[in-house]
Amino acid sequence: MEHNFSPTTYYSTIGSHEPALNVSSGDTVVTATIDAGGWHANGEFIGPRGNPQTGPIYVEGAEPGDTLKVKFEKIWPNRPHGFCSRRIAPHVLEPGDPNMVDLSERLTFRLDFENSTATVEGGPSSLSDLTVPIQPMLGCFGVAPARGQAISTATSGPYGGNMDYKGFAPGVTAYLPVFVEGALFHLGDGHAWQADGEILGTGIEISMDVTLTLEVIKGKEIGWPRGENDDYIFTAGNARPLDQATQHASSEMLRWLQTDYGLDSEEANFLLGMHVEYDVGNIFDPAFTMVCKLPKSVLPK
Amino acid sequence: MEHNFSPTTYYSTIGSHEPALNVSSGDTVVTATIDAGGWHANGEFIGPRGNPQTGPIYVEGAEPGDTLKVKFEKIWPNRPHGFCSRRIAPHVLEPGDPNMVDLSERLTFRLDFENSTATVEGGPSSLSDLTVPIQPMLGCFGVAPARGQAISTATSGPYGGNMDYKGFAPGVTAYLPVFVEGALFHLGDGHAWQADGEILGTGIEISMDVTLTLEVIKGKEIGWPRGENDDYIFTAGNARPLDQATQHASSEMLRWLQTDYGLDSEEANFLLGMHVEYDVGNIFDPAFTMVCKLPKSVLPK
Amino acid sequence: MEHNFSPTTYYSTIGSHEPALNVSSGDTVVTATIDAGGWHANGEFIGPRGNPQTGPIYVEGAEPGDTLKVKFEKIWPNRPHGFCSRRIAPHVLEPGDPNMVDLSERLTFRLDFENSTATVEGGPSSLSDLTVPIQPMLGCFGVAPARGQAISTATSGPYGGNMDYKGFAPGVTAYLPVFVEGALFHLGDGHAWQADGEILGTGIEISMDVTLTLEVIKGKEIGWPRGENDDYIFTAGNARPLDQATQHASSEMLRWLQTDYGLDSEEANFLLGMHVEYDVGNIFDPAFTMVCKLPKSVLPK
Amino acid sequence: MEHNFSPTTYYSTIGSHEPALNVSSGDTVVTATIDAGGWHANGEFIGPRGNPQTGPIYVEGAEPGDTLKVKFEKIWPNRPHGFCSRRIAPHVLEPGDPNMVDLSERLTFRLDFENSTATVEGGPSSLSDLTVPIQPMLGCFGVAPARGQAISTATSGPYGGNMDYKGFAPGVTAYLPVFVEGALFHLGDGHAWQADGEILGTGIEISMDVTLTLEVIKGKEIGWPRGENDDYIFTAGNARPLDQATQHASSEMLRWLQTDYGLDSEEANFLLGMHVEYDVGNIFDPAFTMVCKLPKSVLPK
Repeated sequence: MEHNFSPTTYYSTIGSHEPALNVSSGDTVVTATIDAGGWHANGEFIGPRGNPQTGPIYVEGAEPGDTLKVKFEKIWPNRPHGFCSRRIAPHVLEPGDPNMVDLSERLTFRLDFENSTATVEGGPSSLSDLTVPIQPMLGCFGVAPARGQAISTATSGPYGGNMDYKGFAPGVTAYLPVFVEGALFHLGDGHAWQADGEILGTGIEISMDVTLTLEVIKGKEIGWPRGENDDYIFTAGNARPLDQATQHASSEMLRWLQTDYGLDSEEANFLLGMHVEYDVGNIFDPAFTMVCKLPKSVLPK
Repeated sequence: MEHNFSPTTYYSTIGSHEPALNVSSGDTVVTATIDAGGWHANGEFIGPRGNPQTGPIYVEGAEPGDTLKVKFEKIWPNRPHGFCSRRIAPHVLEPGDPNMVDLSERLTFRLDFENSTATVEGGPSSLSDLTVPIQPMLGCFGVAPARGQAISTATSGPYGGNMDYKGFAPGVTAYLPVFVEGALFHLGDGHAWQADGEILGTGIEISMDVTLTLEVIKGKEIGWPRGENDDYIFTAGNARPLDQATQHASSEMLRWLQTDYGLDSEEANFLLGMHVEYDVGNIFDPAFTMVCKLPKSVLPK
Repeated sequence: MEHNFSPTTYYSTIGSHEPALNVSSGDTVVTATIDAGGWHANGEFIGPRGNPQTGPIYVEGAEPGDTLKVKFEKIWPNRPHGFCSRRIAPHVLEPGDPNMVDLSERLTFRLDFENSTATVEGGPSSLSDLTVPIQPMLGCFGVAPARGQAISTATSGPYGGNMDYKGFAPGVTAYLPVFVEGALFHLGDGHAWQADGEILGTGIEISMDVTLTLEVIKGKEIGWPRGENDDYIFTAGNARPLDQATQHASSEMLRWLQTDYGLDSEEANFLLGMHVEYDVGNIFDPAFTMVCKLPKSVLPK
Repeated sequence: MEHNFSPTTYYSTIGSHEPALNVSSGDTVVTATIDAGGWHANGEFIGPRGNPQTGPIYVEGAEPGDTLKVKFEKIWPNRPHGFCSRRIAPHVLEPGDPNMVDLSERLTFRLDFENSTATVEGGPSSLSDLTVPIQPMLGCFGVAPARGQAISTATSGPYGGNMDYKGFAPGVTAYLPVFVEGALFHLGDGHAWQADGEILGTGIEISMDVTLTLEVIKGKEIGWPRGENDDYIFTAGNARPLDQATQHASSEMLRWLQTDYGLDSEEANFLLGMHVEYDVGNIFDPAFTMVCKLPKSVLPK
């Protein structure tokens, strides 16, 4: 079944909020997200600042210990302008680096849908018309965390959250551990473009049209967000420092290789060690994100 | 001028050792490295274990405050077998992860030069013939560090060292800060293949034929190793935790953008924030390596 | 005014829950906490596991940007037995340390109120009757965090939380930043004894009688929990890694020295650098706690 | 036997340098150290900057796998003035903290030996005559590290080095792992006073008279520096981040409790968890120092 869902409330935490929509496992949801600053596709300010979330979506049958599978069929900007910060976060630079700039005003990017590009308006002088391709992604999505928590959309954890990983793009399938009945899926923080690490604290922040399909995998327990696309399977660890995020992602991949690919611990160690690729998600937020990837081509059949 | 240099001594530290070869700026050196375990191309054990280094090579005219440019024209295995560890380092996994395995025996890989592949002999059961392409790189190279230090080839720092970054491959040009007269360039630790992070503690460890050209850039002062290939410029930060390695790499790139590409601090922040890509070098050793990259296509002309 | 408050609900998050008690600024509250496992003074299991909190207490007049002053007049065990874990957390030890033990059963301590001691029952052989003095403290207390969050009592942040600092003992005054109307003060997780770091994951966990006085300091904005006792003023930073916790605590102390002790930035740097003492709070939980202390004797009059 | 040793060379690395003195196990050495900046007791500049070291002292019979026991009988300033920095290191404060000051000029402290105090000359205004007690300590000492390394006295490791722990004071006994024949003991970097963490980058830097007794403990292998005084035994872990330093110190203490105090792994976990105290050594240098302490009063007889 397909649901057309026009959200009217937006949360700045991911938590056990009143469901905004109820769906069955396998249903598709056609919806939209407002931008990280609370601005709607139509240009109105309607949500709280700081990655306001569409949802939560209650998925029938989801229970703690299950996994929620989320196929992102579509993520595409639904308006022709986004905003972007212009200074790298101090903690990404050497302590006391004189190149820490203090520039709080944001830049506007105009989208050219015909050419699939975004161009800054009035960037710093020699970059006054910096242009990038539109490569849409969702920076923040997740399920309600354990213990009745409601956690700021500024950060992330085992439940997902503000991972800002550019691999969460159209066509990807994400997997999330379910901690509460109905899973309570949230989504928001669309970016028309983002580099690694989101070190500016933003990508090109924009409202999005999103189509996704939600499915409950009963009795499958995972520890951290996972994903797959045509070429890779991957896991995301969310913690500080980046070393700890790396530990979660790597251990989660070892578990995955054993439960789903028939490897034993020794084989999983060897295969991962021989083929791992790491991608850096968010290194701006309270929790950093490290992604541990394996090419599908090297996985056992 | 081209030097054919057959090393006879190998150091397990990078430091102010007696030069093994003197060259002029711009000279090319055709030489070889033994493997990380001290084994020569001919199968003999001749060097100390732990990334024994060929060199040091004294480059005439190099002084503290200069930069040494190293063009790696050739890095290619000079024997048909290498060795590899089989277990992921405990610190790369979650504390107490039951998938930490304790397997110290190493695996042998056989190289097929015709097909440019390497195949394991007797890998763990379902991976008994795991095969990878030959993608050679140097895991450890650098110049003598400051203050007369001699630092173990197990680790790395501003002078280079054991970075285990697979981007240090044939065709790349590396740049290193010079701390002592003559720079004193060392090289070793060739890998026929390595995944990100060197999380096994090894790649496919093998002896190599190496051809490189050394050039002094007078009066150019840099803070951390840099590199460039056809598509990217990059900087390497070496420290623990990975967060600090990231700071060094990112700050170094901001400096580079200003001194060589005519950007001011504000422009450098914005350009790097919009286009940065991070690659994970070594996360096995005492110091971890994070690489900060920018595509050449986005650099100002 | 004094309130006798017998809690009936306990939260395992610190958040914007329905107030369980309303008080005026300056009021004293005589209340009790159940233990970290949910066990009441009377031996009944009545709360959720994991540092269930008494409260929240709404303090009239408290608004975001104010500070809540909490004087702990009394913290004392209200039953004669507590429990304790027996194994050091894996992440406190070297990765792969063979001394990581896997012992999940807990030990019981019997309290001797006459001698103010606690003695283990059946500790590991040669420590079968290990005895410590009763030195009560509260491991976890805080105010509702910003953005409507409800955060697990397993962790900590600017709002306080599970800091497990043994300096939060009877006689201490704590200061907390107010993020929501009424501040919403929570308390729990009493320990009859705890070493530095809470590296077992517990102290001697016990229910407590607590008397405290709550006061709103209008218009005083602070960034992190603070405290003072007869001899010291101190600040608590809560984050991972411990280095970051140290940064928050140190920067908060610099701010305090300027706003309340008439020092300028230069003087504050020098005084803190000459006299700082650091205490390690929790290094078990998701966020670690570092405490930055200055002796009152060195403060300007 | 007692040696009066007047050093004439000073090293800014700890390494396998030519011995400056040979002693037998059990001998006492009466010597002196110059200050961290290279200034002698007599006011002359005679050494390299950056913690120049007296030594190395070769101890007959010491071999890799042994332990060197160093009893510091005397550490006392041998001149009436020392110097001190005045700004907290940027990395000790929150990234971008506006209270990072940029003050490179150093302050002079005058020592009053009659009253055992040190008073600053011209401190920042309200602290113009800040006075502290003389509490002497050695900031940097150690033995030659493994693999023929020579490591900057700016940092530290398993071999000791620049730990800046105020517990390394007169009367303490330190234990160091021996990596090379003769151990090659170095010492320097005396402080007349230092707070925790050496967050200014200096204590009160001064030249010292030092008397110490060196003894080889054959066949005793330890992993990290250890110490004991009247009240405590302690271990020092040297690494970044502070979390890793904590791991080394804690694991080393677990090992000590088993080899020397007859505890098994389970007992050692419990005893350490119940009684550990952590002290923060250097958090200024490339490697940080965390000290893990246990009161002697709780150790098994």
